[in-house]
Amino acid sequence: MQSTISTSILKIINNEVTQSPDLLAIEEPLEIRLSYFENSVQHEKNISVTMRTPSNDEELAIGFLFTEGIITTYSEVKFVHSIQENIVIVELTPEAKIDLSKLERNFYTTSSCGICGKASIDAIKTVSQIFPETEKIKYRSTFILQLPECLQKHQNVFRQTGGLHASAIFNKEGEIVLLHEDVGRHNALDKVIGSACIKSMLPLTDTLLLLSGRASFELIQKAKMANIKTVAAVGAPSSLAVALAAESDMTLIGFLRNDRFNIYCGNERVLPD
Amino acid sequence: MQSTISTSILKIINNEVTQSPDLLAIEEPLEIRLSYFENSVQHEKNISVTMRTPSNDEELAIGFLFTEGIITTYSEVKFVHSIQENIVIVELTPEAKIDLSKLERNFYTTSSCGICGKASIDAIKTVSQIFPETEKIKYRSTFILQLPECLQKHQNVFRQTGGLHASAIFNKEGEIVLLHEDVGRHNALDKVIGSACIKSMLPLTDTLLLLSGRASFELIQKAKMANIKTVAAVGAPSSLAVALAAESDMTLIGFLRNDRFNIYCGNERVLPD
Repeated sequence: MQSTISTSILKIINNEVTQSPDLLAIEEPLEIRLSYFENSVQHEKNISVTMRTPSNDEELAIGFLFTEGIITTYSEVKFVHSIQENIVIVELTPEAKIDLSKLERNFYTTSSCGICGKASIDAIKTVSQIFPETEKIKYRSTFILQLPECLQKHQNVFRQTGGLHASAIFNKEGEIVLLHEDVGRHNALDKVIGSACIKSMLPLTDTLLLLSGRASFELIQKAKMANIKTVAAVGAPSSLAVALAAESDMTLIGFLRNDRFNIYCGNERVLPD
Repeated sequence: MQSTISTSILKIINNEVTQSPDLLAIEEPLEIRLSYFENSVQHEKNISVTMRTPSNDEELAIGFLFTEGIITTYSEVKFVHSIQENIVIVELTPEAKIDLSKLERNFYTTSSCGICGKASIDAIKTVSQIFPETEKIKYRSTFILQLPECLQKHQNVFRQTGGLHASAIFNKEGEIVLLHEDVGRHNALDKVIGSACIKSMLPLTDTLLLLSGRASFELIQKAKMANIKTVAAVGAPSSLAVALAAESDMTLIGFLRNDRFNIYCGNERVLPD
């Protein structure tokens, strides 16, 4: 599928006007349909419409289902495929037990205490899987500092359009094992985690997630679902992103640029050189 | 309401580690509840939960209702207020006629041709108001080039945290008349348009909207609902953003930085110096 489209624009540089060819990142709606069994009867339901950059729609759909807590493993999926350009259908096996109420946003709670960041974090805890504790991987600061440059070298569509968010998974050796781009930052991460789910690479415990932009609550939530322990963002984190990362024993790095970065929680995973 | 929270972080600069105080942009869920009349019976419904930066919650709620096409004027609103920290309730007058089906995302269509960018644009046309045609305002490139610096001077929370999106409305004289910041780019624009709605400033025909980041379909859709004719973004536009702007006779500018910018459609509103 195409991720960019060519167009003609006017460039104004120093008051000099030139007609120039240009590439745009494609944004199109994707409908995710879920086919599942309830009391031996098969049902089909549209569960999401998201504006995304076409490509890896199957991975996006699987990542969305996994990070929302609807499926816990790819073995619950009988098949996933695009039935038209902008519709992807995921059929679950008759054995898959699902709880569609989870789709009513994880952070949405109806408890009498109202709705707040604390309730949002508690709601995440109830849907995420418990993964066995493992030894904490430690990263040297020189290792962390070279990640953005490494990402940039691999970011194809961004280089062409300047218009995409990227999510990348690095292994301990500093190699990119998964990388996806999208107009939506949550989609880029869903594609990465969906791809890991399909390839039986979950949980991503011993890896580092690099985000090309800011770190919001939603992105840390998705990382937590895949048991990613270290997240580094080129941009700023929000208050609730830091709170969820700290609560989840994760390391959260922000403003990773040039010769510097900030550590918001989980200092023990970073070793200064 | 507070928009930032202080925290303590580790800063790593040139391999030098220092403990340092820092400010984070607050991200918290906001629930928007709508109270409305149907056949003289009053109903209440939770219509949205969005992750936002606290402040101007009433404007955010009104802007959301307006840009989703649920209300067309502030006179349909009896009152709007925060009933708790993270819940805002909008009560409509008994006379207000609303169509809640519009809440099922504007771009979502169930036509047999499936779902695509074209259908998304067609769906927007059915909900936006028809505003009278007016003479096109023309902007000199020097006028456009100084907008980002002007925005930066006024962006308080961003300067403190580096973590927020901004939306600003400029008048013909280049003055900022409305400016809001938020962790969510759609929220920043909803706050701006909601504020214009409350102050009876709609439609915003003779103004220019400046976006601190990228221009997505959703942002152009919201601008169109308020009849904003010129949108300038510091970042890249997506394909569908350009298509909707072109279709709506809007001028869309991208990559507005330093001494340069690109015009994606509606060239006639820009006069080179």
